Amino acid sequence: MPKGTAVESVWFEGDAVGFVDQRALPQRVVRTRASSVDEVIAAIQTLAVRGAPAIGIFGAYGVALAQRRHAGDAFRAAAARIRAARPTAVNLAWAVDRVLARPDGDVLAEAEAIHAEQREIDARIGRNAIPLFPGTGNVLTHCNTGPLATGGDGTALGTFVAAHRAGKALHVYVDETRPLLQGARLTMFELRAAGVPCTLIVDAAAAVTMREKEICAVVVGADRIARNGDTANKIGTYGVAIAAAYHRIPFYVAAPRSTFDVAIADGGAIPIEERVPDEVRIVPDDPVFNPAFDVTPAALIAGIITEYGILRPPYEPAIAALAAHPIPA
Amino acid sequence: MPKGTAVESVWFEGDAVGFVDQRALPQRVVRTRASSVDEVIAAIQTLAVRGAPAIGIFGAYGVALAQRRHAGDAFRAAAARIRAARPTAVNLAWAVDRVLARPDGDVLAEAEAIHAEQREIDARIGRNAIPLFPGTGNVLTHCNTGPLATGGDGTALGTFVAAHRAGKALHVYVDETRPLLQGARLTMFELRAAGVPCTLIVDAAAAVTMREKEICAVVVGADRIARNGDTANKIGTYGVAIAAAYHRIPFYVAAPRSTFDVAIADGGAIPIEERVPDEVRIVPDDPVFNPAFDVTPAALIAGIITEYGILRPPYEPAIAALAAHPIPA
Repeated sequence: MPKGTAVESVWFEGDAVGFVDQRALPQRVVRTRASSVDEVIAAIQTLAVRGAPAIGIFGAYGVALAQRRHAGDAFRAAAARIRAARPTAVNLAWAVDRVLARPDGDVLAEAEAIHAEQREIDARIGRNAIPLFPGTGNVLTHCNTGPLATGGDGTALGTFVAAHRAGKALHVYVDETRPLLQGARLTMFELRAAGVPCTLIVDAAAAVTMREKEICAVVVGADRIARNGDTANKIGTYGVAIAAAYHRIPFYVAAPRSTFDVAIADGGAIPIEERVPDEVRIVPDDPVFNPAFDVTPAALIAGIITEYGILRPPYEPAIAALAAHPIPA
Repeated sequence: MPKGTAVESVWFEGDAVGFVDQRALPQRVVRTRASSVDEVIAAIQTLAVRGAPAIGIFGAYGVALAQRRHAGDAFRAAAARIRAARPTAVNLAWAVDRVLARPDGDVLAEAEAIHAEQREIDARIGRNAIPLFPGTGNVLTHCNTGPLATGGDGTALGTFVAAHRAGKALHVYVDETRPLLQGARLTMFELRAAGVPCTLIVDAAAAVTMREKEICAVVVGADRIARNGDTANKIGTYGVAIAAAYHRIPFYVAAPRSTFDVAIADGGAIPIEERVPDEVRIVPDDPVFNPAFDVTPAALIAGIITEYGILRPPYEPAIAALAAHPIPA
């Protein structure tokens, strides 16, 4: 992929939902298609399509596909199955509910609107973040939050791309993000495609990198943000936030309004998905604890970068206000 | 390997030096033998035998084997070749020099003495640590510090084995320890062989494991300890120590007196080896920062468990005293 090329992660093809199979990256860029509801669900569950906003857009296109294949109860059952394909990502359920609620029943039009809004949301998050970065400096991120994950420029990764385009000389240190290596496989690929200087590290090197490379900001994405600002994100985020606090480095979460879940008071109530042991172990019978996410307490978060601006602590009033009165895009 | 069996890493067989080929672990336990000086050197250079103390004992047995095969200049040349097999491993040169300096020329007896002393040192570290653990609880460790590496019960790992044998119900959470996975490959194997309950996690899950599993103590080994207690150990140790401090969990270093380097005032003066990028990256040209070790400041260390007892902060007086007047074993 040539430098500066935007990566497109999901799209609608009429009789299928197209997507880049993220499992084949970075060695190969495989563009493929889900031609049935089962294939849509499989693509989500096998992480061929991943990243909360991208899953939402993909799921919405999946419901549009289901609408062309099924009617009545069969359609509603298919939509419900897509909605339940992954429990932790709130965007999927939100997107499916939204396309189903469209008064004229045009699911595809609503899915395309969600996709266009996501591109605009990412662009705004990126613009809002630019003042947070110095003219020159090293930053750090965890997991993948770029175009592959969102369908736009990305959230946390989009902030680096926006600052880079604005002429700031940022160098991004990228946690490899075990067990599935989204940082090594996807984030490095996306940053290099966007022409942003970047260096890969093992997750366990994040703390020493903060000290040795004088990291000036950490920015990560979010899978779900509770009403008080507690943030569920990829396993390892919590440890990065603790290390940032120890080094007095500001730790930011970049996330769209759709990531806020005001029904959840705090992180203790966010359900955490535990994944299969074979992602981690080498011999078949080793016991494994493999949580896919962790929760970073709001106290460790210096700001939440949204499409509406940068929320600062205490988060609860701002999050409640945003949820009650979403500003029209 | 049946439960409760101690892992023996190296031993003398009369006409050969026996060893467990660590490259085949954990999938297979390959007990093999080096029947010549060339095979002894090859086992060291290919990392079939690894861990600084284990390499020293293995090299000493190798010199005993050479003494049975060669005399005069040929013997001295063989010993010199073994001594130089891994120039950076201090224990190897130290052990070879020591067996050659024995007044009565009985190399095998001196090699056995070194091995017995290592077992005793490890046993004392283990015994000294027992009171630090509750009767029942979860603990966490990073990297590999067991019998394969030391020829005894191990250092940090030996503390868990000693507490287990003393009837304490510990469950050990083991960081996989990227990039070389010593935790996943070796530590899990050793703990299971010793019958100690254990669970593997990715390094990035250490922080959430501390919270969710109510970890009551963290114990790690050390590669080098400066005069003020700053400790160089496997990459990731620093982040684990920061996370332990955040959760108010005591973080201990277990290490023999030989690990103290009083010539170094503090961690800033400890040289940190940077290893090749290909240990980390997936695509050949990704830039990588791959430090093999990091330095944990003494302020994050609740105690240093040695064969002489548990040192408590401030460490400098105790470390200086130990170095100046080593207590006879």
